[in-house]
Amino acid sequence: MPDSRFYRRAGPFPLADIGTRAGATIALPGPSGLTIADVAPVAAAGPHDLTYVSQADYLSVLKDSRCGACLVKPEWAASAPEGAAVLTAADPRAAFAQVAALFYPDVRDEPGGQPAQFAPDAVIASTAHVGAGVQIGGRTRIGHNAVIGAGVILGDDCSVSPNVTLSHCLIGSRVIIHPGVQIGQDGFGFVPAKTGLLKMPQLGRVIIGDDVEIGANTTIDRGALEDTVVGAGTKIDNLVQIGHNVEIGRSCIIVSQVGISGSCRIGDGAVIGGQGGLADHVTVGAGAQIAAKSGVMRQVGPGEVVMGYPAKPIKQFWREIAAVSRLTKREK
Amino acid sequence: MPDSRFYRRAGPFPLADIGTRAGATIALPGPSGLTIADVAPVAAAGPHDLTYVSQADYLSVLKDSRCGACLVKPEWAASAPEGAAVLTAADPRAAFAQVAALFYPDVRDEPGGQPAQFAPDAVIASTAHVGAGVQIGGRTRIGHNAVIGAGVILGDDCSVSPNVTLSHCLIGSRVIIHPGVQIGQDGFGFVPAKTGLLKMPQLGRVIIGDDVEIGANTTIDRGALEDTVVGAGTKIDNLVQIGHNVEIGRSCIIVSQVGISGSCRIGDGAVIGGQGGLADHVTVGAGAQIAAKSGVMRQVGPGEVVMGYPAKPIKQFWREIAAVSRLTKREK
Amino acid sequence: MPDSRFYRRAGPFPLADIGTRAGATIALPGPSGLTIADVAPVAAAGPHDLTYVSQADYLSVLKDSRCGACLVKPEWAASAPEGAAVLTAADPRAAFAQVAALFYPDVRDEPGGQPAQFAPDAVIASTAHVGAGVQIGGRTRIGHNAVIGAGVILGDDCSVSPNVTLSHCLIGSRVIIHPGVQIGQDGFGFVPAKTGLLKMPQLGRVIIGDDVEIGANTTIDRGALEDTVVGAGTKIDNLVQIGHNVEIGRSCIIVSQVGISGSCRIGDGAVIGGQGGLADHVTVGAGAQIAAKSGVMRQVGPGEVVMGYPAKPIKQFWREIAAVSRLTKREK
Repeated sequence: MPDSRFYRRAGPFPLADIGTRAGATIALPGPSGLTIADVAPVAAAGPHDLTYVSQADYLSVLKDSRCGACLVKPEWAASAPEGAAVLTAADPRAAFAQVAALFYPDVRDEPGGQPAQFAPDAVIASTAHVGAGVQIGGRTRIGHNAVIGAGVILGDDCSVSPNVTLSHCLIGSRVIIHPGVQIGQDGFGFVPAKTGLLKMPQLGRVIIGDDVEIGANTTIDRGALEDTVVGAGTKIDNLVQIGHNVEIGRSCIIVSQVGISGSCRIGDGAVIGGQGGLADHVTVGAGAQIAAKSGVMRQVGPGEVVMGYPAKPIKQFWREIAAVSRLTKREK
Repeated sequence: MPDSRFYRRAGPFPLADIGTRAGATIALPGPSGLTIADVAPVAAAGPHDLTYVSQADYLSVLKDSRCGACLVKPEWAASAPEGAAVLTAADPRAAFAQVAALFYPDVRDEPGGQPAQFAPDAVIASTAHVGAGVQIGGRTRIGHNAVIGAGVILGDDCSVSPNVTLSHCLIGSRVIIHPGVQIGQDGFGFVPAKTGLLKMPQLGRVIIGDDVEIGANTTIDRGALEDTVVGAGTKIDNLVQIGHNVEIGRSCIIVSQVGISGSCRIGDGAVIGGQGGLADHVTVGAGAQIAAKSGVMRQVGPGEVVMGYPAKPIKQFWREIAAVSRLTKREK
Repeated sequence: MPDSRFYRRAGPFPLADIGTRAGATIALPGPSGLTIADVAPVAAAGPHDLTYVSQADYLSVLKDSRCGACLVKPEWAASAPEGAAVLTAADPRAAFAQVAALFYPDVRDEPGGQPAQFAPDAVIASTAHVGAGVQIGGRTRIGHNAVIGAGVILGDDCSVSPNVTLSHCLIGSRVIIHPGVQIGQDGFGFVPAKTGLLKMPQLGRVIIGDDVEIGANTTIDRGALEDTVVGAGTKIDNLVQIGHNVEIGRSCIIVSQVGISGSCRIGDGAVIGGQGGLADHVTVGAGAQIAAKSGVMRQVGPGEVVMGYPAKPIKQFWREIAAVSRLTKREK
């Protein structure tokens, strides 16, 4: 499932090896002689992929998965799709991290491959580094000391400023990337384990649409198994953090120093004010507005305007501010 | 008006072409045969400059402008100075963005020019990139992989750390710039338009006074039409964001992760605590103190001490905190 | 006391010269002919070191110091340890800054020294810069355009991404440093003086334990006189700020955009949520949890869970949120 432009896969491995590496019990062996060729998210897994579920919410998705094998808690074994092998472990996420590292032992290596391809009118600074297999479109400019990792694709008329690092990403046309932007590094994914914090291999990508602008020193992590996505026309200011698996719609405005935690979904045309923060897995509807410095901990509906910490409808926020202020006057 | 060290101008253009590009109506044609040579902010525009007003507050300034032509809403046409040509459009800011792009079509190009000039005792790392027309003063050091864009001027005894990018800026003497700082990139200026978010060309500069220190990975955007200014002796910590057109006074202290939105004015000796945020166009008086994490949404007077979100006088902040706390006790 | 790998020391100087530079009064001259060879923190100073105390809290530590000389306020002279020379000044911190600059006049110079040493299987990108005396362990990889300052030590199996700057630091094994990270630059230390803000020379180091991961564009300042320390197994997300002299324990989780002010102490296994902020000198106990966006202004006990601005026990936080909400309903 991980993109072979960016990741070199080991394997395939027989199910028994997977079980051993995972420290898991084989509750159902699946078809005789089953080999597992890759890891994949539950909705995208195919008959030779291993997937996992670590939250009960996803068991309904698992039911319909086409996965060859799944890693779940022992009490969830019955939720596996028919015919799939079932591995059980007390902490399926930790077990999956071990298997992912078996398939992708050298995530920190830059894959080799074809030479880079530049459009004849692309302008690449002499001090930029461009990795193997990179493709750069027409009139796109790469600034001094920018580093474009192996396999990255950039469309036409992009501007990549100095001191930018791009890896594990596919970038559209007319994208402006300001200096110091870091795109495609590992997301922040760790599983508590007896030996400390176990790293979940980060095997996804970053996908940036056309006409996106990304401000100086902003960071966009690549997805864990799925992709981090920024929709066409979205404008991102400086020093913004976008976590792994986040999906941002089209023509959004994300103001400076906003932090968007992992797996958030932001609808088209949403606006997030400066220093706003979103907890992980939060959904923000199309056209919603989040006031500066707000801390969003639950879903924001389409067109809703919220403010505060925790964020609430903006009228209620101001009503509470006024009520607290009156309280001190009453008490004097 | 934009500094020719950094921007190459097209034109001049006859008023009619300006009107066409702006999608504007020529309400008053001004002197016969008027040509427009440049764009400029309302207070600085001269007889061959086009300016614009998009907020009613600025109409009083427009009255006294020496501009050759102005772009305003139809209902504001009477506020133009005598003799000036008047163009009207429903959204003067969007119309102006189109004209600015006509005069400055290649803002992302680095201008060529004279060779760089280094004081004989300046120390430039071999891996640094120094653009055309750069001037570097005595004993100033430029670190490895720093990128100094065309036209930048640095005074004496400055220290520019590795992986810094400077462009569109004039920097005083004894300035310390820590690694990863990005100065002079585009401000975050977009105008909603039918086709999506229209980019306002960013045509100003950054001016840094003597004895300023700028912390690691801090970002300072250049002005839109005017300049972003940091006064002498001001100390800025790491990961701070300073938006376009901000003017910071002398000997201020700006602690880590502060965000200062566009067009704020900060008086001499002001202190802004860590993670504080200022909404755009906020004025902070000399010697004011803004507590860490505060969100400032309106003017702060000279010497005032404020805290909270929204920020209020610090005594009132603590009074409210206490009142809310008592409230829960009463209710038990 | 400052590490000679990173700092070149001048001196020694007779006590009288120290007094002159400090603008201090020699209240007690100490042993006849006393020379001072270095500056040091109060707990570590030896018989030829000068130390200082600027807060009354530290006078009890001073009593037991083995320092050769100390700089204190006139009214604290009696708190000096027996036999030590005593210098007095109205602002001991400002006076000390002057003396530190006497011993270390060229802190911004990169020290020369031995050639760098690489393990034979270390992989150093051709465009990386590696300073004098650097040591790089087995299988450690240094990315493109990374800058490793003189004297830095990196253990085995580390990964240093592109566009990283390291200076004044000692780094363990299996450490992952994401792109744009800046480690070892000056902390943010200034003393108000008649002539403006006086810079306190920053003479410490950064010590990073084994198995630490540091997210993109994070900044970690070196200590002022002591060290900034990150314990083994701790995971730090993107755009985090860690101030000078901070000590973080083992296996902590520091989420994106957190700001930790100078001299904080964080116990093992503590978790700080995204955009959280800690005021300076705050202590956080082992296993404590600080909710996202909280502003911590005082000690957090071991295992405590806090939230809010200012941060309080999380149950009390939610109780207050509910009470304020009810208040607006009552008032309708």
